[in-house]
Amino acid sequence: MTTTPGVLYLMPNALDFGTAEAAADLADRLPMGALRIAARLEHWLCENPKTTRAFLKRVEAVCPLSLPLQQISIVELPRPPKGRPEPATFDACQLLAPALAGGDLGLLSEAGLPAVADPGALVVAAAHAARLRVVALPGASSISLAVAASGLNGQSFAFLGYLPIEADARNARIRELEALSRRERQTQVTIETPYRNATLLAALVAQLQPTTMLSVSVGLTLASETTRSDPVARWRSQPGSVPADVPAVFSFFAR
Amino acid sequence: MTTTPGVLYLMPNALDFGTAEAAADLADRLPMGALRIAARLEHWLCENPKTTRAFLKRVEAVCPLSLPLQQISIVELPRPPKGRPEPATFDACQLLAPALAGGDLGLLSEAGLPAVADPGALVVAAAHAARLRVVALPGASSISLAVAASGLNGQSFAFLGYLPIEADARNARIRELEALSRRERQTQVTIETPYRNATLLAALVAQLQPTTMLSVSVGLTLASETTRSDPVARWRSQPGSVPADVPAVFSFFAR
Repeated sequence: MTTTPGVLYLMPNALDFGTAEAAADLADRLPMGALRIAARLEHWLCENPKTTRAFLKRVEAVCPLSLPLQQISIVELPRPPKGRPEPATFDACQLLAPALAGGDLGLLSEAGLPAVADPGALVVAAAHAARLRVVALPGASSISLAVAASGLNGQSFAFLGYLPIEADARNARIRELEALSRRERQTQVTIETPYRNATLLAALVAQLQPTTMLSVSVGLTLASETTRSDPVARWRSQPGSVPADVPAVFSFFAR
Repeated sequence: MTTTPGVLYLMPNALDFGTAEAAADLADRLPMGALRIAARLEHWLCENPKTTRAFLKRVEAVCPLSLPLQQISIVELPRPPKGRPEPATFDACQLLAPALAGGDLGLLSEAGLPAVADPGALVVAAAHAARLRVVALPGASSISLAVAASGLNGQSFAFLGYLPIEADARNARIRELEALSRRERQTQVTIETPYRNATLLAALVAQLQPTTMLSVSVGLTLASETTRSDPVARWRSQPGSVPADVPAVFSFFAR
């Protein structure tokens, strides 16, 4: 007798993590189809069990959970070493055990889609290797929302993750990416830890050519959401600021 | 006396366009926050007025529209010349007139986010140039869902749009992108018109190195959604197929 394996569901989260709006009705932020699946899953993998429980309480306010919260299994992904996006190795069989035993399993990120600009890709890869079905539920990623809102080329864009922190290396990387953007006609998209947002903005405004378009989206999907898209020359003549406590996405396109 | 300008809302659409599931409850596919805004907008820009009316009928089944459908203004974006993603020029002031006059304006795509792998970026750019507020409402893009579901690197990925149609040019481009993927450790993501899905899959399986990971997502967010992620060697020993009538997203990562 063989067990039919469960499904690995990639569950979107809202983009309001850590903000004052994180108490908002989750049905305003996520489709009901995803919330109904979230309400019935009994096994979760996540970055942080505490925020996963907070997410499930928000789900419960919309859809009754199939199990009491304290009976839901919530397992933390192995933490990557400092400065690395993913752990070097982990025991995939142990993490995927609930699905291999026939139960459906959710993978949740702190904000947006798991495994996009976020840990989790190794678990998804392990699920494919184990021939589990992987289903990505509909939800927003700040990267694609920022590309849409930028008005820059959305037919070709690259998400680069984080740029180097050290100033000389970051500046060299910005100039290299600007040349790539011009050559490939490709929008370049990057993010930063919020407390370094202002440093990154200053570096982009200083390093990019005056005609290059620079777009900064702050607080996507929040009431305070703003996107400014301007040539670098205008960012220089009318400097902008970016808050140190809200996620931002930075996009540029060399013309 | 000056008028406060309206907002340009980038409205997500469901990813079920043209499929048998396009009659599904839109609240299962899109967040209520976006649907409530869709229900109150009186001015739309779109790729296709007929499918926009169909979208608004789906919205109406969830949220009453603030105006009868026939009184809602729906304007078609200028069509790009054949083979080009965007029109060469257009009258932005005319298209944005409702927002410049103080009314909120929606931009809708046939599927997913407007201006991402889709027309509309020039209108968004014109809105920024006119100092209109641009707000991207939360919704799924098939590109980021495919990256999540692939298990490939989601910390660095590039969406390339369409590859060349002519076989030699396409094959050369695939090999060039594979080298770029290896050098930059970057997932490469492409799409194709559904009737050419099988041709693209065959080209990728033939051209990529055996160790390169190839992921194909078909019918994202539909009940039939599948993602297969395997090394190219396995795609060769266990060939796969891809339907000719459902959107697919192809991702690869050279190891």
